[in-house]
Parts: sequence; structure tokens; C-alpha cells
Amino acid sequence: MRVVYTEGHAAHAPKRFIMRGEIGQSPEKPERAEILLTAAREAGHELIAAKPHGVGPAARIHDGGYLDFLENGWARWCELPNHADEIIPNVHSGRNMHQPPQHVVAEAGHYQADTACPIGPGTWEGALASSDVAVTAADLLCDDIEAGDRGAYLYALCRPPGHHAYADQAGGFCFLNNSAIAAQRLRDRGAAKVAILDVDVHHGNGTQGIFYTRGDVLTVSLHGDPAVYYPFFTGFAHETGEGAGAGANINYPLPKDTSDEAYLAILEDALETVATFKPDALVVALGLDASEADPLAFCKITTDGFRRMGQVIAGAGYPSLLVQEGGYISDQLGANLAAFLAGFEGNRA
Amino acid sequence: MRVVYTEGHAAHAPKRFIMRGEIGQSPEKPERAEILLTAAREAGHELIAAKPHGVGPAARIHDGGYLDFLENGWARWCELPNHADEIIPNVHSGRNMHQPPQHVVAEAGHYQADTACPIGPGTWEGALASSDVAVTAADLLCDDIEAGDRGAYLYALCRPPGHHAYADQAGGFCFLNNSAIAAQRLRDRGAAKVAILDVDVHHGNGTQGIFYTRGDVLTVSLHGDPAVYYPFFTGFAHETGEGAGAGANINYPLPKDTSDEAYLAILEDALETVATFKPDALVVALGLDASEADPLAFCKITTDGFRRMGQVIAGAGYPSLLVQEGGYISDQLGANLAAFLAGFEGNRA
Repeated sequence: MRVVYTEGHAAHAPKRFIMRGEIGQSPEKPERAEILLTAAREAGHELIAAKPHGVGPAARIHDGGYLDFLENGWARWCELPNHADEIIPNVHSGRNMHQPPQHVVAEAGHYQADTACPIGPGTWEGALASSDVAVTAADLLCDDIEAGDRGAYLYALCRPPGHHAYADQAGGFCFLNNSAIAAQRLRDRGAAKVAILDVDVHHGNGTQGIFYTRGDVLTVSLHGDPAVYYPFFTGFAHETGEGAGAGANINYPLPKDTSDEAYLAILEDALETVATFKPDALVVALGLDASEADPLAFCKITTDGFRRMGQVIAGAGYPSLLVQEGGYISDQLGANLAAFLAGFEGNRA
Repeated sequence: MRVVYTEGHAAHAPKRFIMRGEIGQSPEKPERAEILLTAAREAGHELIAAKPHGVGPAARIHDGGYLDFLENGWARWCELPNHADEIIPNVHSGRNMHQPPQHVVAEAGHYQADTACPIGPGTWEGALASSDVAVTAADLLCDDIEAGDRGAYLYALCRPPGHHAYADQAGGFCFLNNSAIAAQRLRDRGAAKVAILDVDVHHGNGTQGIFYTRGDVLTVSLHGDPAVYYPFFTGFAHETGEGAGAGANINYPLPKDTSDEAYLAILEDALETVATFKPDALVVALGLDASEADPLAFCKITTDGFRRMGQVIAGAGYPSLLVQEGGYISDQLGANLAAFLAGFEGNRA
């Protein structure tokens, strides 16, 4: 399988992860991508370097004020006395307070939904690099589709992940929504309808938000029940889209400790829903954190379960772009990626 | 002057103050109240013990779900693995995410606007004690008014402060909005119109929010310009009330380093606005953090400036309830309170 990658992601190396009142280390480390890259290389997949695309493709999805904050907020933060070495929000706009942000501390609270997306000196560079990976892969897929190959597929080794990023808000380790940017790229290059299938263990809330009122991009997410799991405020089954997007958002909240068998049954159901949409291409938001070994554990997917997930998704037959989302360091992380890719490719051979 | 107080506040002793990505110590310490109490006692003021009123008066202002979280959230938090010894939010509901909270981590992000209002085992008890102080003082003022004494006044030594608390959200060291609860108590006991004049250096955003659509309570706040100062998302001059409250909210954003002379000129203007409202009673949200010595420094009010503030406000002649808001530990804190009370009482003698 072709694997698109760039080392540029490493410029973003978040330190803090403030959760439940304590400051811990961020699990979204550059080493994640190195582990995934090694696994892909050792499995014999073909590596392709991402091409730089600048902010253009991201600007098709993201708000201008938000992009300015991501690019230039760090410099404004550095002018503050007593600032930490990362931008972390501490006061938020919300239902009671909503004048536009002027100060960089207000921008942080407005544009960062939580304390899991610290912004450091290299965050913008790293996030753009991740977007470049998604866009490069989307372009290659479009080239194949234009050449008449509707069985084409690629894997975009994106880091940092993207699916918690809204049009105007970072969150949960995410800044630019790579899956959404890729889907838009596919649309812009001719795919009339695109489906995004999100198998990350966390609800793809940013992706849902971006396409919630659009009928041209179907968003489907399988994830831990948000009643008890991040991101808590979205991802419920009754959120089904609005306006032109009515019916084009499907959430499958999963109970804790969901096993391979239960997961795969739901995945089959999700793919039937995708089939009724008749997409011209499929973006898989490929989180690997439903793993039984993931440090943010919620589900109990085995390595063989990931192989079967790849197999089942490949069987749907769409031109497919696999976009890396979450999945944190465990002794199974690399094996889970290799298993998914092998399962996928084995069912397309 | 009669000073209402209770030691109950000390049950609330917050530890953390997460700001700009760093965990510091909360400046909203029980010692604040002890310093204020000592200053009042040494100035010869009469101490009156607060009477317990339970949650009833607070429930006239605050949302039921919010009050349940304040009272019972701590027990739910303690059931979490790896929880800190205080509830601190890390993921927030907002413009993009707004399903009702179910998990206690979601409640924290929904009901706490920022990281400056940690909730520990004694927070509910302390916040109720602070509300008791305000209600006891309001009742005594009402007794005087009913007895025909329209020159009556009292000081409610409330801690924790209240003016950043919305009907359904804590923030900025505040949980129950004592000034709002007192104003409502005055309304419920017969004052047809009540004005709240907030001289804390931070915008009284919770108070504004509570009364924003009501015409029976005028809210006026002098505070550091929110374009560059907490709470950032409210407190601008164009926020003037809505519906029945249209025109009944007045904000005076102040530039950094505002001096006594400039402050007092604006205060005179604010009191002219209050006069046109013809209130039956005045609640002064008496923050002392505009002090030149305050650790959260923004303005440059001297101790003599506080004396003159008290004098000017007393001169307006309303039955007055002085409700302690912010003001943090410095070598001037006690003196500033004593000066304000002396200035006030000296102009009522």
C-alpha cells in the first residue's frame, strides 16, 4: 500500500495534558508517528513524501480567525509576562460569555475547546505538515480515480490527528481536521459525494461539526459513549445532521469494553448506511485507540480485530483514503496499524 | 457599621489557580476574610453573626442543575480514578458542543467557566456560608427600611466572592452570586427596584448575566477593560441589557493603571446613572482589587481613593448593602476596607 508521510509533524511536540485537575504528559508524541512509520515500512508498504500545499486546502475547511490564531497566536503568547511554554486555555467563551476574543488569552479560550491541545512554537508547522500528508494522499487518489481506477486506496500517516478540530476550534490533540480537509479536496477534484467513516475510539466531533449542515459529505462515527467519555458534549445517536445535512450524520456510541465481535457487527451496519449514500470516495478516519492496549482505553479491539476492520472496510469497494487519527503508544500500536493495512489490502488484491 | 460575618467560609480553601498553562496557588484564600475581619474589628465596627438560610435564597437566582453540581459534584468526582483533590474543568461545552452534561467531567466543563474556581470537599459549605452572610445582611437592611430608616447600611463580609457566578456557572473564584442573591432578597422583601454597583476591578459578568433581561435590577460595573483583562468575553460598553432589561446594564471598561482621580470621576458618572433609575436600595459589589497593591493588579487605586469611593457612594443616599467581592492579599487589603467603610460611614453620620 502507498503510505504518505513527512517528518514535518515532529515540529509539534506537545508537553502538557491537563486532565482531571492534574498536569500530565501528552500522549500525542512524535514517537507515535515513528512507530506507525516503522510498522508500515517493515510490512513492505511504499513510502511517498508529502508535498507542501500551504494553508490553502485547510482554508477550504477552517475559519480565518482560527487559522490566524494557530499561525500567529504563539508569537502573541510569548509577549505575555509569566506565560507557560505552551498555549493552554484557562477561561472559555461559552453560553454565558461570547464577545469576540481580543487578547491572546481570550483567543486561547475561544479557539481551544480543552486543555489537550497545547500550542507550542512548532504547532503550526506540524499541523500544516499533517494537512500536507492528507492532501497529498487525496490528490494521488484523485489521480487514480481520474485514470479510471476505482479500486485505488492510500494511507495518509497524519500526525497530529485532526478529527476533534472544528472549523474554528482545536481540541483533543487536534488542530487542522485532516480527514475533513481530505474529503473537501476529493470534493473539489470532482467526487460528488464523499463519506467519512470514523473508527477512532473518540467521537469525530470536529468532523461532524464541519459537515453537519452539508449533504454532500456523509459523516459516520463509531466511538465510546460520550455520556461517559471524551468529548462528552457530542456524539450521541440523536445527532443526525441539519438542513441540507439532515440524515447525513450517523453516530454509533459504543459501550465500554466493546469487543471485536460487537464492533464488527456495528461496523457492518455502518457500512450499509454508507452504501445507501452511494459515495464516490471514502475517507476512513483511522484511529487505532479502540485497541485493548491503548493507554486511553475504552474498547477491547484486538490486533486481529483491526485486521478484520480493514478487511470489512475494503470489502465495501470504494476508492479509499485511510487517514491516521488517534491511537497512542502501546506495544500493540504498530502491529494494529500493520494488521489493519494488511486486512484492507488483502481484501482488495 | 454593622458587619455580618461567619467563619463558615473557611470550609472552602481552594488550592490551584491554573493560569497561562501553569498551576499556581489560588489567591482566594480563607486568610483574605480573616484580614478583612481584623480590619473591621480594629476599626470598631459591630460584628453580627450570619444566620443559616440553606439553599433557598440562592435557588431564587441559580439553576437547579448547577446547584446540584455544586452540592453533589464532589462526591461524583471522588468516584473517578486518578482524580485531583479538586474539581477543575478540562473540556468545555460551548458554541460547537452543547449536549447536556452527564458525566461529572462534563458537568465540570459545563458548570465551571474557567480554571479559577476549583471545587473541593468544603466548597458547597463555604459558598452557602457566604450566601448566608449576604442574606442575613439583606434581611437586616430590609428590617430597617420597613422601620422607616432609609439611611440604613451594612457590610456583608462575604467569602468566597460571587459576582463572576452566573445563574448556572461558576468562574473566577465565585460559586454563588452573593450580590445577586442579596438584590433578589431585597426585591422579595419589597424593594421595587434595586441597583447593583460593582466596583471590583473585574467585570461583574455573572451579575450582568443574571439580570440582563430584567428591568427591576440595574447592574452597573466599573472594571478593567475586558479587551485585555479577565473575564475577556464580557464587560464591554455596548452590552446594555436586552428585553425588559434593555438599558439596565451599564459597563465602564477602565484603562490599565486608572488612578484615583479618573476612577472617581467615572464613579460620579455611574452614580448619576443609578440616580436616574431611582432604586429603592443599592447593593455595592465591593471588590477591593482595584488597589495599586493588589496582586492581580490592573488599576492604581490608593487607600485614600477607597475612602473617597466610600464617601461618594454613601453620598448618593440609598439604603445600602456593601457586599464583599474580590480583593487579594497585600499589605493594603485591610486598610483599604477600613478606609472604604470609614469614608462611607463618615458621609452618613
